Amino acid sequence: MKKKIIYLDYAAATPTDKKVQKAMAPFYSREFANPSSLHQLGQHSRAAVETAREQVASFLSCSADEVVFTSGATEANNIVIQGISFHPNPTANPTSHPGGAKLRTPGVRSAGSKPHIITSMIEHESVLAPVLQLEREGVIEVTYIAVSKEGIVHPDDIEKALGENTALVSIQYANSETGTIQPIAKIGKVIKKYKEENIGSKILFHTDAVQAALYLHCNVAKLGVDLLTLSGHKIYGPKGVGVLYIKKGSRVRPLFFGGGQEQDVRPGTENVACIVGMGEAIAEIRNPKHEIQNIQVRQLRDRLIKIIPQRISGVEVTGSIVERLPNNVHLLINGVEGKDVVFLLDQKGVAVSTGSACSERSKEPSHVLLNMGYGDKEARSAVRITLGKHTKKEEVEKTVKILEKVVEQLRAKK
Amino acid sequence: MKKKIIYLDYAAATPTDKKVQKAMAPFYSREFANPSSLHQLGQHSRAAVETAREQVASFLSCSADEVVFTSGATEANNIVIQGISFHPNPTANPTSHPGGAKLRTPGVRSAGSKPHIITSMIEHESVLAPVLQLEREGVIEVTYIAVSKEGIVHPDDIEKALGENTALVSIQYANSETGTIQPIAKIGKVIKKYKEENIGSKILFHTDAVQAALYLHCNVAKLGVDLLTLSGHKIYGPKGVGVLYIKKGSRVRPLFFGGGQEQDVRPGTENVACIVGMGEAIAEIRNPKHEIQNIQVRQLRDRLIKIIPQRISGVEVTGSIVERLPNNVHLLINGVEGKDVVFLLDQKGVAVSTGSACSERSKEPSHVLLNMGYGDKEARSAVRITLGKHTKKEEVEKTVKILEKVVEQLRAKK
Repeated sequence: MKKKIIYLDYAAATPTDKKVQKAMAPFYSREFANPSSLHQLGQHSRAAVETAREQVASFLSCSADEVVFTSGATEANNIVIQGISFHPNPTANPTSHPGGAKLRTPGVRSAGSKPHIITSMIEHESVLAPVLQLEREGVIEVTYIAVSKEGIVHPDDIEKALGENTALVSIQYANSETGTIQPIAKIGKVIKKYKEENIGSKILFHTDAVQAALYLHCNVAKLGVDLLTLSGHKIYGPKGVGVLYIKKGSRVRPLFFGGGQEQDVRPGTENVACIVGMGEAIAEIRNPKHEIQNIQVRQLRDRLIKIIPQRISGVEVTGSIVERLPNNVHLLINGVEGKDVVFLLDQKGVAVSTGSACSERSKEPSHVLLNMGYGDKEARSAVRITLGKHTKKEEVEKTVKILEKVVEQLRAKK
Repeated sequence: MKKKIIYLDYAAATPTDKKVQKAMAPFYSREFANPSSLHQLGQHSRAAVETAREQVASFLSCSADEVVFTSGATEANNIVIQGISFHPNPTANPTSHPGGAKLRTPGVRSAGSKPHIITSMIEHESVLAPVLQLEREGVIEVTYIAVSKEGIVHPDDIEKALGENTALVSIQYANSETGTIQPIAKIGKVIKKYKEENIGSKILFHTDAVQAALYLHCNVAKLGVDLLTLSGHKIYGPKGVGVLYIKKGSRVRPLFFGGGQEQDVRPGTENVACIVGMGEAIAEIRNPKHEIQNIQVRQLRDRLIKIIPQRISGVEVTGSIVERLPNNVHLLINGVEGKDVVFLLDQKGVAVSTGSACSERSKEPSHVLLNMGYGDKEARSAVRITLGKHTKKEEVEKTVKILEKVVEQLRAKK
């Protein structure tokens, strides 16, 4: 960061930790071999991938063979959503094939009753976009669960939506815009109860834990999830790598087919360096120092939530204050457009955002805010400030002062 | 490479160039922002991605907006194969959707006549596996083109296979095992002629140029291709990144849906560092020094092809000697198993392979060799030696001596 930019957009991307960079470096130089190669150099790469897998498994309290590395969270979420829309077809007759390729996950699009997906109205685009696509292609049925004004999904609403053909429930652990935390463990219990009462039900429960992983426990058994998504660049790891936890026995059709890597769920030569970086970033979360950093982040965030509405009139903090990631400040600023605030703050050296980076270029107002009950104009006045472990008290104080001026300037224009 | 290992497995993975590493480094430290972020830091990342896209476009002689970055060649090949099995359905009625996600590529699996794919029997697993999967799911028809004993596809055979419902022809530029080069430009002409004579035909022509890119021109217009695949780690770039060239006007259904990145063909936060590395690696191919290195590689390779059969009896070089990548030596060694040779060479510090890394762990003999007409036993005796720009004359000489001893040792055991 040249010119001392105050970076407060940690929910969009975190810097890659020095420790992570150091762990990755050998895999761009001497340890460059293909992990599928049988020779010793190949074995070094293989071992590095498997060490990273163990690091992730420890974090999730699962087995290493339940951890699949992907190219990122979008891919992981798509494997989940698209993967369940194919029903396994054990009677399919393998055709002869000139190649040696094996088919480990045969499947056909269900011709009869469509698989039913339950998801919330405020999921990330990487969940909502594939759901919409499949719904439009006519291959799934969908129930979109509404959220409260605080941005929270009620487990009772999930319970009511469960049915015979429900194949998947996908609810995010924490929202990327408002930082609102969903009651995943409670939803997990609701689904477990349903499955106990409805023998034969094969509902899978997925949570996108991309935003949550730095701050909330991700013990998959305690959460009661069958599938869970992580992303490297949201946890001080590299871009281009994600994790999909797949509970033993859960079957999804892969998005790709190829050389059999990652248990055939995600073939293609492993991105060794980024996988190593992911493992190291995950290991850092379990470092006791991390807890202390999170407390500091929360204190700075709490100060922002307290003083911004004191200094600037007409500011509303959206979403639950309690069930909220400790690094998230999400504001509606009356009488201004969020994008104008972001632009002027940026000119003055403060990097924040209007919402999720992935949809920031869209001209539409945030679907998260609209579904929390805010109007179009309110939704367009949103500013997201997300803190990280490198955030300093002085930066926070300075940001408030600059924000005050920027809002004053914008309101004066009207 | 510790302990001075002689690495002769460049077709499996190349070391990442120092220049490439240097170009990537800032994107793991200060330039870490999300390229979708609107602030200046985000714009730096965006600019880096777009510079890399220009570098690739120059190499392919195409427009930058025809270049899509993927997580690798397996993904790129799967986008092609799976993407054409969905026919656009302009009459589909968009459903209402709580999110803001836009659907830019509507499509449904064709219900009537199935799309027809023509491919060769010796393609890489990342082409054959998705083809087999879709064939088994009953959504496509496939013609597998046989190859000559020299491993070459005859354009006449493609011509004969073209039909009304042909949607895609996918033929590799060069084989990963034998290095055999296919007559892509000639096949391109055959397809062009067919389309001129059959108005309305929308056949797309794809080539997997992963192995070829370092050594052969990749001018997409001269090749006559609509789709072309590249991979980072085969061209002294990083793993975890690939390129799919998509000629303007060609439509494929994406594998993923999400935040709209890469023109919606491949959404997900861009792997900025690896994309920058890909651009730099591609730029290096266009460096005049590269031509000289290729000549040196060819000279060393020619020496291996000459002296190995002189020193070791019962050795056959497979595939065309003329239409062959300049770095490839592929041998059948009578009376031994390739994997035993690889193992003993590795113990003596020489890293080679039995074939493609992606299928090296398979217990089946190479489908490439079987389809070239070799028997099971012959196919199991294969050893692939692939050279690179760091290969030295002394390494080549030493390898021949060690190989001689290893083969003698294995044959003595019998």
